[in-house]
Amino acid sequence: MSKFWSDVVREIEPYVPGEQPKIAGLIKLNTNESPYPPSPEVAKTIDRDAVDQLRLYPDPNASELSQALADYYQLDVGQVFVGNGSDEVLAQLFMAFLQGRGTVLYPDISYSFYPVYCQLFGVPAKTIPLREDFSLALADYSTEAAGIIFPNPNAPTGMGVALDEIEQLLKARPDTLVVVDEAYIDFGGESAASLVSRYDNVLVVQTFSKSRALAGMRVGFALGQRSLIEGLERVKNSFNSYPLDRLAQRAATAAIQDDDYFKASCAKVVATRDRMTSRLEALGFTVLPSQANFIFAKPPAAVSAETLAAQLREHKILVRYFNRERISDYLRITVGTDEQIDTLLAVVESLLKGA
Amino acid sequence: MSKFWSDVVREIEPYVPGEQPKIAGLIKLNTNESPYPPSPEVAKTIDRDAVDQLRLYPDPNASELSQALADYYQLDVGQVFVGNGSDEVLAQLFMAFLQGRGTVLYPDISYSFYPVYCQLFGVPAKTIPLREDFSLALADYSTEAAGIIFPNPNAPTGMGVALDEIEQLLKARPDTLVVVDEAYIDFGGESAASLVSRYDNVLVVQTFSKSRALAGMRVGFALGQRSLIEGLERVKNSFNSYPLDRLAQRAATAAIQDDDYFKASCAKVVATRDRMTSRLEALGFTVLPSQANFIFAKPPAAVSAETLAAQLREHKILVRYFNRERISDYLRITVGTDEQIDTLLAVVESLLKGA
Repeated sequence: MSKFWSDVVREIEPYVPGEQPKIAGLIKLNTNESPYPPSPEVAKTIDRDAVDQLRLYPDPNASELSQALADYYQLDVGQVFVGNGSDEVLAQLFMAFLQGRGTVLYPDISYSFYPVYCQLFGVPAKTIPLREDFSLALADYSTEAAGIIFPNPNAPTGMGVALDEIEQLLKARPDTLVVVDEAYIDFGGESAASLVSRYDNVLVVQTFSKSRALAGMRVGFALGQRSLIEGLERVKNSFNSYPLDRLAQRAATAAIQDDDYFKASCAKVVATRDRMTSRLEALGFTVLPSQANFIFAKPPAAVSAETLAAQLREHKILVRYFNRERISDYLRITVGTDEQIDTLLAVVESLLKGA
Repeated sequence: MSKFWSDVVREIEPYVPGEQPKIAGLIKLNTNESPYPPSPEVAKTIDRDAVDQLRLYPDPNASELSQALADYYQLDVGQVFVGNGSDEVLAQLFMAFLQGRGTVLYPDISYSFYPVYCQLFGVPAKTIPLREDFSLALADYSTEAAGIIFPNPNAPTGMGVALDEIEQLLKARPDTLVVVDEAYIDFGGESAASLVSRYDNVLVVQTFSKSRALAGMRVGFALGQRSLIEGLERVKNSFNSYPLDRLAQRAATAAIQDDDYFKASCAKVVATRDRMTSRLEALGFTVLPSQANFIFAKPPAAVSAETLAAQLREHKILVRYFNRERISDYLRITVGTDEQIDTLLAVVESLLKGA
C-alpha cells in the first residue's frame, strides 16, 4: 500500500478473470472463448499495409466499424457505441448513467464484475436472488433503482430471459436504465437490439469475444438511443479518445461482415453443447438449460464440483469453479470443439468410475 | 441530452483530439505522429499464427511487454504498468491517486486532457502559469497539492524541464505525487525513469505513439515504485482486465526490443527538426526551443497563425492551431519527413511572399 492510494483503491476488491496459463496441450474450457478461429476475413484485413499505417492514430470514432454494426442491427450509426471490450463499455456506462444517480440492481448469481464497478464508482448495489431453479425473473426487480443490469443469457448459469419479459420491464420502469448484457446472446438467446428504437431506457451491450472469436482483440459495443450513446461518447472522450486500435477496428469490421462464417460457428457450438449436455446428463450430471457457449453442470453425488475441477486440471482440462454460495456444487464448462469435448467426456467418465 | 445523464456527463467538456481526416495526399503535421513506420520487427510479429490465436483472451498482465520495458529501463517488472495508450494510463492514475485526495497543479499551457480528467473525476485543479518565455519552472509549484502533473517536454511548446529540477521537486514535496508525462521524451529530453527507484512520489508516463511509431496500436505505460504500480493495477482490474489486445502486446514488445531502429528514427526526427527550425527562423518565424517531435512557431507579423493554418490546409498541409489565450499567435507543427518539411517550407515561403 502507498500513502498515495485513494480510499477507493484501498477498499476495492478487483475482478479476478479466469486464468490464462501457458501450458502446452491444455484443453481450455474456463473462459468461454470460441473453440474456432475468427473469420478468415480477419487475417486478410490485417495486412502489411495496415501494419505500416500503425504510425498514425486510429479513427477515434471507429466510424467504419460503427456503421457495420448499425447495418447489421438495422440501427442508425448514432445508436452504436464501441469500446475496448464490453468490460470497458460497462465501466463507462456506470460512469455515464449510474454513478451518483441511485441504486443498481443485479442478480445475486451473475457476472462478478458488476459489484466491482459499483465499488469503483461508489454506486449502491442491491442483489436480487435468482429463483430456486436459477431462473432470472424480471418481475422480482421491483425495488426503486437508477439502473438494472443483468446478463442475457445469464452467467454462469447460461439460462436466458425471454424478450417479452424484458419489454415488460422497460414499459413498467420508464425512469430506470435497463442494461442487457448480451455477451452470450448469439448461441440461442433473443437480442434486445430490436427494442432499442422503441424504448429510451435500454442499453444493449455485446462483445466480439465469444461468438465472433476475437477475445484477443478487445472489442465490445453498446446499442441504444442516440441520447444514451451521446452520454457514453462524452465519457469516452473524457477518458481515452482512441480506445480501439487500427487492427481491432479492421478485425471487428471484417468479422461482423462475414455473416456466413459467424452463423456456421455458432451452429457448431450449439450442436456440441446439446450433445455434451445429453452425455453429461447420462453420466448423472444436472445441467442447467443453456443458451450460451458454456454449460453450468452439477456432478453426480460421487464427486464434488471442486474435486472434479482439480482432477480435470491434472488431465490438462481447465474448467471454471466458483467457490461461492448457491453455486459451489457446479462447474462452468465452455463448449469446445467436438474433439475437446469427447476428451472431456472420456476423462469425466473414467474419473467417475474411479470415484 | 437524456434524463439518464449523470451531473458529470452533463457538465463535462470532453477532450477534442486533433482531426484525422481521410484526404488523399495530405501532409499530416497536426497530431505529432512519427513520419516513419514502426520497426520492421512489428510486421514480423503480427503473423498468421498471432491472428489465429485472436480467439483467446490476451495475457491480462501483458507480462512479456512489461518485462521488456523493465529490461529497457533497468527496473523491476513490478515497477511497470501498461495501458491502452498513455491517455488511459493518465485517466487511471487520476482514479487511483488523485480523485478525492486534494488539488492537482499543472501548467496553464499544457496538455489539454488534464483539465478534462479533473472534471471527470471531480478533482480540484489549479493552473500554474508558464513563465513569460514559456519555460516551465517547477519552483513555481509551491501550492499545497495532492498531485502535480506536467509534460516533459511540455506540449504544445516543446520546451523541456531539466532532470535536476524534477529531483529538487521530488525532494521538496515528499507527500505530493509528481507525474511526469514523457510522451515526447525520446527526442532530446532526459527521462525521470532514472529517479523511480529513489523516490516513492514520482510516476513517469510514456507512450508508444510518438518515438515508437505505434499511435495506431494504443500502448502507453507508467514507471514507478511497486506500491504505486499496485494501486494502478487495482484500478485497472476493477475497470477492464484486458486493456491490451494480443497484437498490441506483440507489436509494442517488438518495438521496444529494436533499439537500433528506434535510435535511428529519433535521430532523423531531431535532424529534420533542427533544419526546419533554422529555415523557419530565416523566414522570420519565432520558434521555441524544442526537445520534442514538433515545433511551436510564431509566424512573422505579415500573417497570423490562424490565417496561415487555414492557408496551409488549402495546400493539403495540416498543422495544429489552438485558439487559446497566450498561444493564439503560434502554430504547432509536427516534424515530418525531410520531403514533407521541404514542401511545407516551400508553401510557407510562397504564402509569405503573397502576404
